[in-house]
Amino acid sequence: MTPTNLGDVLAGFDQPWSPRTVATVNDYDVRVFKAHGEFTPHRHDDTDELFYVIEGRLTIRMESGDVELGPGDLFVVPRGELHQPCSEHGASALLLEPSATVNTGDNPGALTAPRVTLDD
Amino acid sequence: MTPTNLGDVLAGFDQPWSPRTVATVNDYDVRVFKAHGEFTPHRHDDTDELFYVIEGRLTIRMESGDVELGPGDLFVVPRGELHQPCSEHGASALLLEPSATVNTGDNPGALTAPRVTLDD
Repeated sequence: MTPTNLGDVLAGFDQPWSPRTVATVNDYDVRVFKAHGEFTPHRHDDTDELFYVIEGRLTIRMESGDVELGPGDLFVVPRGELHQPCSEHGASALLLEPSATVNTGDNPGALTAPRVTLDD
Repeated sequence: MTPTNLGDVLAGFDQPWSPRTVATVNDYDVRVFKAHGEFTPHRHDDTDELFYVIEGRLTIRMESGDVELGPGDLFVVPRGELHQPCSEHGASALLLEPSATVNTGDNPGALTAPRVTLDD
């Protein structure tokens, strides 16, 4: 029964676009990831996806316009919406989505990452 | 398509144990709340409940022992577990749980709060 410190988890890896599942809530995952450069544009047809920025600046490019997030900012990409997370100078962020969600959604490729937990 | 800054939301109210729903992800709520003093001991029989501390220190008293959370710490109370959030000096925290979840769980009383969104 000990808490998980997100700063400690984030200090333990550097690879961008490689989420770590830090907690599960029922069948949802809370994940942290680092962003740097441009991620794959993709959509999740079956779920909304929450981004919460812990450090740095994250841009979510969407067809309706760019959403710019800084520390403490939270944004939910609605299901089915094409989005491309980007960060020119790097960011650390939290994700919330169903545990079965794949990071690259409908657009698998080189950046598709397996589900990695703190026990892996 | 604008983000929500949790610091701005938290600056907008003072009442402890009075959560604000800041986002929904499918049928889950992301809520922020302020803690001060002792909350009602209760359990949620149907859901896990995630706590993430933004500022201050939060103690979650459980039958298996106390869990002490500071900024950046995250903890999930498993479904069915009796828990009592407390904060001697005050804390701000984020909650994640199904939108239908009532703050006082199986122990309604004076601290039972309605679901309040940023539109209310």
